[in-house]
Amino acid sequence: MENLIKSYENNRRQLKALQYAMFMISWDSATEAPKGSFEDRGKYVGTLSEQAYILQTSKEAIAIVDELHKSRDSLNILLKHEIEIIKKDNDRTLKIPMNEYVEFQVLMSQSQEIWARAKENNDFLGFKPTLEKIITTIRKFGKYMETDEMKGYNLLLDMYEPKMTVDVLDEFFGLLKEKLVPFFKKIQKSKVKVRKDFALLGFDVKKQKEFCDYLIDVLGFNRNFGLMKESAHPFTSGYGSTDVRFTVHYYEDDFTSSIFSCIHELGHSLYEQQIDPKLNDTMIGGGASMSLHESQSRLYENMLGRSHEFWEVHYSKLQSLFPNQLNDVSINEFYLFINRVEASFIRTEADELTYPLHIMLRYDLEKALFDGNLQVDDLEKAWNDLFFQYFGLEVKEPKKGVLQDIHWAGGMFGYFPTYALGSAYSAQLYHHLAKDIDINKALLEGSTKPINNWMKEKIHIHGSSMYPKEIIKQAIGEKFNPQYYIDYLISKYTKIYNVK
Amino acid sequence: MENLIKSYENNRRQLKALQYAMFMISWDSATEAPKGSFEDRGKYVGTLSEQAYILQTSKEAIAIVDELHKSRDSLNILLKHEIEIIKKDNDRTLKIPMNEYVEFQVLMSQSQEIWARAKENNDFLGFKPTLEKIITTIRKFGKYMETDEMKGYNLLLDMYEPKMTVDVLDEFFGLLKEKLVPFFKKIQKSKVKVRKDFALLGFDVKKQKEFCDYLIDVLGFNRNFGLMKESAHPFTSGYGSTDVRFTVHYYEDDFTSSIFSCIHELGHSLYEQQIDPKLNDTMIGGGASMSLHESQSRLYENMLGRSHEFWEVHYSKLQSLFPNQLNDVSINEFYLFINRVEASFIRTEADELTYPLHIMLRYDLEKALFDGNLQVDDLEKAWNDLFFQYFGLEVKEPKKGVLQDIHWAGGMFGYFPTYALGSAYSAQLYHHLAKDIDINKALLEGSTKPINNWMKEKIHIHGSSMYPKEIIKQAIGEKFNPQYYIDYLISKYTKIYNVK
Repeated sequence: MENLIKSYENNRRQLKALQYAMFMISWDSATEAPKGSFEDRGKYVGTLSEQAYILQTSKEAIAIVDELHKSRDSLNILLKHEIEIIKKDNDRTLKIPMNEYVEFQVLMSQSQEIWARAKENNDFLGFKPTLEKIITTIRKFGKYMETDEMKGYNLLLDMYEPKMTVDVLDEFFGLLKEKLVPFFKKIQKSKVKVRKDFALLGFDVKKQKEFCDYLIDVLGFNRNFGLMKESAHPFTSGYGSTDVRFTVHYYEDDFTSSIFSCIHELGHSLYEQQIDPKLNDTMIGGGASMSLHESQSRLYENMLGRSHEFWEVHYSKLQSLFPNQLNDVSINEFYLFINRVEASFIRTEADELTYPLHIMLRYDLEKALFDGNLQVDDLEKAWNDLFFQYFGLEVKEPKKGVLQDIHWAGGMFGYFPTYALGSAYSAQLYHHLAKDIDINKALLEGSTKPINNWMKEKIHIHGSSMYPKEIIKQAIGEKFNPQYYIDYLISKYTKIYNVK
Repeated sequence: MENLIKSYENNRRQLKALQYAMFMISWDSATEAPKGSFEDRGKYVGTLSEQAYILQTSKEAIAIVDELHKSRDSLNILLKHEIEIIKKDNDRTLKIPMNEYVEFQVLMSQSQEIWARAKENNDFLGFKPTLEKIITTIRKFGKYMETDEMKGYNLLLDMYEPKMTVDVLDEFFGLLKEKLVPFFKKIQKSKVKVRKDFALLGFDVKKQKEFCDYLIDVLGFNRNFGLMKESAHPFTSGYGSTDVRFTVHYYEDDFTSSIFSCIHELGHSLYEQQIDPKLNDTMIGGGASMSLHESQSRLYENMLGRSHEFWEVHYSKLQSLFPNQLNDVSINEFYLFINRVEASFIRTEADELTYPLHIMLRYDLEKALFDGNLQVDDLEKAWNDLFFQYFGLEVKEPKKGVLQDIHWAGGMFGYFPTYALGSAYSAQLYHHLAKDIDINKALLEGSTKPINNWMKEKIHIHGSSMYPKEIIKQAIGEKFNPQYYIDYLISKYTKIYNVK
């Protein structure tokens, strides 16, 4: 047994070193690599992935995990969970015939470029054959991997949010549809005017960067174990709790974009930094799921970062960086501006209230594609019809509709719901956080430290050593309940837009 | 045979991917990695090195190279050279018992920190026991690896400059000692006054960076295949001709440091960028040797970058960036300043003329340590005595003497001579370049393009597909001859310092 564990740990050590290398390369690719280096780099990454794949799927590696899995009840609780996850992963991977797996990788290596071109040309038909191939393959892989307990769209959901099912999501999105769609229509009729003139005055990028650098300390990110950089699209990356990195993108004509994406990524980063360092050597470090990660980024971005209390402390700093643009803008005008609600076509630019409606639409369509009867032929029309139903806007260009996101081109079906789930988790966590911590007091004192500590103890420290639903249950004593989210949104925006 | 080559190529592909990963990690370490990440990163790098070592020294890999080596005359000329190099390398590596090799790696992982502490404390005794261990081990490894044709210090030289021997270097440094030491003493008595007041006025780092960015285009570095960044010590790194990176360090109180280290690193970078891309997939890409590399960096830095013609075109740009500091400094005053000669303790801060004397001193000592009778016990005194003899200065602190360089702490004996050799090669190449290209005309036209092209065709394109001495011979039709270097230095500085 001891030898078996040692063999497992040795294999894991090899695999982690390769994964670390790939983290470094992809960080470099996204932030500074010279354009001309990508062709050669592609070859090296291919070879490293191949080495990792062999380490994971060699007969020996599979046998070790199988043996450990048989005796899992005699393992310590952490290793037991790790082995369960890997066993499940192995079982799924091995069901896919090697040649079909490779074929899919080849498809994936081309599909994102095909999508990008189709989007640029506003031409859904240019992407349709590729999307059909992707969906057909994923359906086929689903058939290989399905069990009596898990099949169809549930299987896809489980890949990004372990143990999440259509039942739970139907209830969640049903509630959203019932409550939020009519509420949003009310807000659209509100007479509250939001001042927006100052936002177009041009905001020096270097000063925006300086403000983000200031936010790093406000939110308590540990600079010794991470860094902030620039990239085309903001993201958080890292490897273990000792190397956590995030990026921001700066727009001269949209200065709040960098502020809120910085706070958003800091939410992800705090999560990664506060995971128990003893998990760094294992396969159960890192956040527990996409949703839990998103619950952190959205809690920091929206509930803390867009609160009046937060800006009562930090607005003067922002004004001092941009006196010409902001000195005659009151904090209340600024607060209204950063919390304005508007119907818009693009998900990534949506406000806090309408964002989940964008996700709901994608959920409806994905479910219909995998469990229902929707065909790719009818996807564009289905998108546009639903969009009109939820937002009252007619989609006229696919780049602002069905072609806007990269996810489907990357084969990521089942991923979108985690965004909305994350927001819903964040409201539920916020409710319980408020029982233990005086949130407003902390914000008015200019630091999120007490909040960070609460999150660390309840959520972060566990990494992915438990399933997300177990972490939530243990943290707050109840299971996922979307009602908190609905209540939070309606209460907040009823006040802001003075609706009845 | 075909299968053998395929196996070799497959192994090489695996190895190159790992080396590429290590390049990325070390680039990141030197330029931006968070301090707290180094402990974990050390483990990953250790594992990746282990994987690379296994790929290189597995029985199978060794047998493939041995087989190919036996039939090397039937291989194409490039593969033949590659196999010869690898075979030589394997033969040496395999002669060292595994446990001693590992022990040495452990020593190496500690020695640089011990050296850094000793240097900080000005305490040679604190480093002495470690240095003794390093030297004893390298002597022992030398015994394992020596052949009838190559032993002692020659073996160490060969590691950094293939086929270079003590005979050649004795002649080279003998000439330096005979001609340069007395010449330097004459210059010290020269009445020429160098104006230096302006250098202390404080030069904004951002503007220095802007000037370096300008130099990138002056020297024709291809931005599509590389980039410039900042680090504590300037260096050039990269992997293949499509990804070449260099760094600069900026000092407010020493503005010419960034300018000349930028040009120096651009010399290295042009070399790497102009290597035949078809060598990227092989083990014979990259510069042919340390000396040849240094010949390029020094030719660009000193012969082109410190020439009057160069600044006739670019000085006004520099003045426009620093009007307060430079507007009343004439180009001749600036030219004198950047070519001033001064006795100084620190090699890396030395001027063009005294630099080789610093190397000569290290060569004398290394040779005595490995072939003569010098013991580490007497090393500090020997250093200080020689230093007084060459420079007329008394070393009072080991941090400015025997402890100043990191090389010996890293086990790099035999490396220093390549610096001086590089300068000597550069003078010889410059002489032949001047026969084919109107160098001054090119410089006065503001571009090094014709020079880059000459270097590409004669030197760069070959990568390390031939031995450095073969490349030189083919390029200029004669072998290494140090007389060009002496002539160049004496002619240049006789004019500048008006000595007889």
